[in-house]
Amino acid sequence: MAVCFSQGSDYYSDAASDQEHPNLILTKEGVKQIRAHLGSIPLFDETLEKVKAEIDAEISQGIDTPVPEDYSGGYTHERHKRNFLVIQKAGVLYQILNDEKYAKYVKDMLMQYEALYKTLPQHPKTRSYARGKLFWQCLNDANWLVYVSQAYDCVYNYLSEEERYKLESNLFRPFADYISIGNPQFFNRVHNHSTWGNAAVGMIGLVMNDDDLIHRALYGIKNINLDKTAKDDDGGFINKDGKAGFLANIEEPFSPDGYYTEGPYYQRYAMYPFLIFAQSLQNKKPELEIFNYKNGVLLKAVQTLLNLTDADGEFFPLNDAQKGMSYYSRELVTAVDIAYHNSDDAAGFLSIAKEQGQVLLDDSGFSVALSIKKGKEKPYQKTSINLTDGPKGDQGGVAILRQGDLELVFKYTAQGSSHGHYDKLSFSLFEKGDEIIQDYGLARFVNIEQKGGGNYLKENSSWAKQSIAHNTVIQNEISHFNADYEKGSKHHSDLHYFYVENDNVKVVSAKEINAYPETEMLRTMAILNGEDYEKPFMLDIMKINSTSANQYDLPFYYFGQILQTSFEYKTPEILKPLGNENGYQHLYLEASAKRDADYSKFSWFNNNTFYILTIVTNSNDEFLFTRIGANDPEFNLRRDPALILRRKNCTNTTFVSAIESHGSYSPVSESAWNSKSNIKNLKVVLDTEDYTGISITNVKGNTTFFITANTNAAKDATHNITINDIGYKWTGPYYYK
Amino acid sequence: MAVCFSQGSDYYSDAASDQEHPNLILTKEGVKQIRAHLGSIPLFDETLEKVKAEIDAEISQGIDTPVPEDYSGGYTHERHKRNFLVIQKAGVLYQILNDEKYAKYVKDMLMQYEALYKTLPQHPKTRSYARGKLFWQCLNDANWLVYVSQAYDCVYNYLSEEERYKLESNLFRPFADYISIGNPQFFNRVHNHSTWGNAAVGMIGLVMNDDDLIHRALYGIKNINLDKTAKDDDGGFINKDGKAGFLANIEEPFSPDGYYTEGPYYQRYAMYPFLIFAQSLQNKKPELEIFNYKNGVLLKAVQTLLNLTDADGEFFPLNDAQKGMSYYSRELVTAVDIAYHNSDDAAGFLSIAKEQGQVLLDDSGFSVALSIKKGKEKPYQKTSINLTDGPKGDQGGVAILRQGDLELVFKYTAQGSSHGHYDKLSFSLFEKGDEIIQDYGLARFVNIEQKGGGNYLKENSSWAKQSIAHNTVIQNEISHFNADYEKGSKHHSDLHYFYVENDNVKVVSAKEINAYPETEMLRTMAILNGEDYEKPFMLDIMKINSTSANQYDLPFYYFGQILQTSFEYKTPEILKPLGNENGYQHLYLEASAKRDADYSKFSWFNNNTFYILTIVTNSNDEFLFTRIGANDPEFNLRRDPALILRRKNCTNTTFVSAIESHGSYSPVSESAWNSKSNIKNLKVVLDTEDYTGISITNVKGNTTFFITANTNAAKDATHNITINDIGYKWTGPYYYK
Repeated sequence: MAVCFSQGSDYYSDAASDQEHPNLILTKEGVKQIRAHLGSIPLFDETLEKVKAEIDAEISQGIDTPVPEDYSGGYTHERHKRNFLVIQKAGVLYQILNDEKYAKYVKDMLMQYEALYKTLPQHPKTRSYARGKLFWQCLNDANWLVYVSQAYDCVYNYLSEEERYKLESNLFRPFADYISIGNPQFFNRVHNHSTWGNAAVGMIGLVMNDDDLIHRALYGIKNINLDKTAKDDDGGFINKDGKAGFLANIEEPFSPDGYYTEGPYYQRYAMYPFLIFAQSLQNKKPELEIFNYKNGVLLKAVQTLLNLTDADGEFFPLNDAQKGMSYYSRELVTAVDIAYHNSDDAAGFLSIAKEQGQVLLDDSGFSVALSIKKGKEKPYQKTSINLTDGPKGDQGGVAILRQGDLELVFKYTAQGSSHGHYDKLSFSLFEKGDEIIQDYGLARFVNIEQKGGGNYLKENSSWAKQSIAHNTVIQNEISHFNADYEKGSKHHSDLHYFYVENDNVKVVSAKEINAYPETEMLRTMAILNGEDYEKPFMLDIMKINSTSANQYDLPFYYFGQILQTSFEYKTPEILKPLGNENGYQHLYLEASAKRDADYSKFSWFNNNTFYILTIVTNSNDEFLFTRIGANDPEFNLRRDPALILRRKNCTNTTFVSAIESHGSYSPVSESAWNSKSNIKNLKVVLDTEDYTGISITNVKGNTTFFITANTNAAKDATHNITINDIGYKWTGPYYYK
Repeated sequence: MAVCFSQGSDYYSDAASDQEHPNLILTKEGVKQIRAHLGSIPLFDETLEKVKAEIDAEISQGIDTPVPEDYSGGYTHERHKRNFLVIQKAGVLYQILNDEKYAKYVKDMLMQYEALYKTLPQHPKTRSYARGKLFWQCLNDANWLVYVSQAYDCVYNYLSEEERYKLESNLFRPFADYISIGNPQFFNRVHNHSTWGNAAVGMIGLVMNDDDLIHRALYGIKNINLDKTAKDDDGGFINKDGKAGFLANIEEPFSPDGYYTEGPYYQRYAMYPFLIFAQSLQNKKPELEIFNYKNGVLLKAVQTLLNLTDADGEFFPLNDAQKGMSYYSRELVTAVDIAYHNSDDAAGFLSIAKEQGQVLLDDSGFSVALSIKKGKEKPYQKTSINLTDGPKGDQGGVAILRQGDLELVFKYTAQGSSHGHYDKLSFSLFEKGDEIIQDYGLARFVNIEQKGGGNYLKENSSWAKQSIAHNTVIQNEISHFNADYEKGSKHHSDLHYFYVENDNVKVVSAKEINAYPETEMLRTMAILNGEDYEKPFMLDIMKINSTSANQYDLPFYYFGQILQTSFEYKTPEILKPLGNENGYQHLYLEASAKRDADYSKFSWFNNNTFYILTIVTNSNDEFLFTRIGANDPEFNLRRDPALILRRKNCTNTTFVSAIESHGSYSPVSESAWNSKSNIKNLKVVLDTEDYTGISITNVKGNTTFFITANTNAAKDATHNITINDIGYKWTGPYYYK
């Protein structure tokens, strides 16, 4: 037999091998169980019915495998993408329904691909650092193979030995080789792209029973030297330290808490190949105990992802992230089902699966649907949680504070690979799934061809990644690490403390000392309950120490319309960009103001809810009212507003503010309820190296004090201080009473 | 007995009169029926339970009748408003539950008001043309009396004769006199304010059995001379032609089709006093046959209002209108229940009542709930409808075209009283309740005190009423009628034709010849179905004839982000206002372009749906990309975008465009479906005095023709014309094939 590209072993697996198909994701035993229970497990049956209707409609339209031409969003791209989703489902239907129609469809499509693939040069579009053949980038080719491997497994025994030989020699093996050996800059790295590549090569290897491919998938291509300084399209290093393969891809980007350094949007994307390949390995190579690898981090990662969603199940848009992606995505259906199938005591997953309203049509989805039928489900509890970043969990992290309907997302991570933003100690605030203070997310319209082919837009670098696009401090109008990826990748913020044991107080505090030379930032953020307050509110203390005098900007990206301010502001007749670079060139200045009291108030209205920011102001403070959209020649950016507090010529300074969500308005009854702030004023009553103390006085005149320990945050440390002749004594990192 | 302010009859009604209370809205017989069915009529019982819980909570908080101080949104205003809503419900609960607790609460509150009212001077806030005593304007005092009259009726027999005497002499009679004789400029007009005034005086008159008040309510104050040139706060004439009283208020503002000239937002507001007073008259003066007055226009008006809502039940925001107001408002619950109670064959109302999820706790609400229980409800069918304006139906109108999920609202009305906008032949477009092309609505935050006391903002005149704020043609940057209310009030547009009989074609055409001297505008708008189209699309033909050369602007107020244009555009680095006056001073120019082909395309993306405008362009056409917000020193306006087509130096010209809504995007699957236009191009193939013909070619290359008859639109007129050597022959106002 001809062995193209082969590195050693004979890749052609004999039909008479000891393995019975399907055995990759669906198993013989699973199919038997599923067939036996058809019609009796509602969630499984409903999913099956929907998938059958979908695939029957596709079959009736015939098969199209067009010559590749387009970027994502274009016809050929979308067609091939649709094809791999469809063929996988058709394979599954063949197994479950035992109806040859589906097997024939899979076979016909595979044969069309076989005929096409052998004629294909590299994809004509040149933008990618690793061009595919069916798609403009190897990444999408790998997506294709991950799905198609499953289809192949399902019809393996339906095909003749000759047919399999034809497919494996002309399609699968060359395909797997092309995206690995043919593109080591894509395959041999630690990156979500490579995870897909690894899974693709590994899964077809498992179906073909090809140890060479399986080994390559798990451990990378050996004996290959890549340029350690080369970068990919997103500016990320291709492979700085030589690590590669599926196991390295589990090892590196996941923290021990299961946080994926690129952030939840990409973690979601990566979870599919991680889990589907892991499930394949679990089925065919159980001796690897892949789900126990790195203390079971793959399963932990599913819990982590679910905790990184808001009340609507949408992922917090950290780093490059398109808003709206949620645990309703197919990747999370996979993740939840496989995680449940491979975990003990995971009844919470079932309630998520029920919300998803569908299951995988395989052994894991069957487990889930059966357990739901048996009533085993429990509510999935999201709580305040701190997630470390970094392979060893020592590179900062993300904290979520949850109290009432508020969710505060506080980011003090490492750079986050090539999809990371320069947003040290930034936060975003959610209520019932709605953004109160937003993180912009990415500047991209994924798969919408009209906008830059559906790919990253240049404003992703010029705006979305820059510090000013985030709710954190920007010094001298320069982004953290001067937006230098290499510099940023060397550092991470550090947790000062995370303390959520008290029912009325959820607090996180972290420090960043590298974003700006000679400047340290310590940010302490809390969600507090208080008597006389309608709802919990957010308190923010950003303490800055610097050896030089600087200008600091602190933006708040709110949504909606300004209601009222406690200070006078001026609006210019013409709008000019706020700056020339570092993202400032994208902001129009709509109004500006000098503060006129020791604290200032800014209230706004959105979605029939009232919001107010109360902020301590110094004598030289300015407010800048901005709107995104300047220097945006193709209208790629949303016209969202922000309020920026600017403080000039300071070495050491502390920003203290509170945000309240309160009241409501009904456009039907036209009545406003609790439309005013409950906080009367905020004061900094103490600010030393060791302590920062804030007094919060409400409209009824009652004052509470929040004091944070800036140096010794030990849980058992005892503090004893005097403020205005009153003694405060407490144990632990903060005082609140 | 002392008779203050009395004009004749002794207003004090004897407890031993022939009338048994309650008899105003609730009746003795109704109460008997309701009590007999308690616990067996779900919708009634559910409403009762909610109202009981609400009122019990209020009772437990005690009664507060503060000395009046504030504008709307402020505490004293909102408290007195809340009080009248609460006392009415408490009265009803007393009758239905027969629990003295509620009667005592009503009595106590009434007595507090009696003690307060007699001490009150005019309200301290001076902004109104007719200051109230409890509120800053008589209008709100009238609201109070309309509700409180009902409460008084419910506890009438609970009170002693002495108590009634006290209340009537110190509170009700002086109150009714103050808002009528004391403020004839408020009471004696044809205006929604006066309707409230009439109902208030009439209803308390009915409870007190005071013919003088009843007569005053029905026919106005006689023998009074008002300044015919005086205007109210909104710039409307107080009383130009001397008409007054409830019957005149039915006569004048309602067209025979039940359209209220101020538009649906104010119609909704006015419907409560119209219907609640009408129900009172029906109960106590059935000989008036008030529901048959003017061919039953009050009941017709309810149908009209329901037809003036989008798919979510929200009113189309014509003229001054706050968005979000809907048939879920308490006024429409009243309207629907009373209309059902007084109509034959009105089963469609029941499905609206069911959606509303509540009924009035009176005879009419009981009828509705009982019929729903009996399963009598039918779907409420909204169809394409043409509603005439003007007391006799000869002052233009509003047409709604409905096809698929699209709703096109076309306005060719009279001025619409003081709440009218200068927006002749303007349109807005909705899909499934979402705005595709918006009408701005009003510039006001009703009852949100932080924004101008909750009242009209100055931008309502400088922006919202101006022509450029609407989707219609603006000549030489001057608003219709030069935004002169007097001039505008003299004229109205005229229907050319309205033709909706064909399943695939819904068309309306109307003419405006007075908005600009020497310029005529004929606008023909259609929603068309076509083969090869995913959904119906909108076609717009605006034909202009002028004796002078002018500049014409045609704006499209879309929502969302620009995807793509078929032409190159330039974005300035700084944003300047587009003009200096007539609303143009509120628009920033974000980009501009010269057209570069015979037709131009502009696509945008909003709420995961794709939209595209295809527009025929002439060689000198310019596109202006604008955003609202310039010269808005208090951020009173929304930052919404528009595309404006500007055509310079033309006498006669025709604007032809199509708008498609198509496809969808899922941020969860990240896939775009049908994201491109189905229309390839539009051409004007004929444009004469008599005919305008448009060819519409779709992306498959198929061409259809739409030809509209510009002069003879008779239903039975036969047309026979030749375009490019092909003959077209048809009967009726348009050809489409």
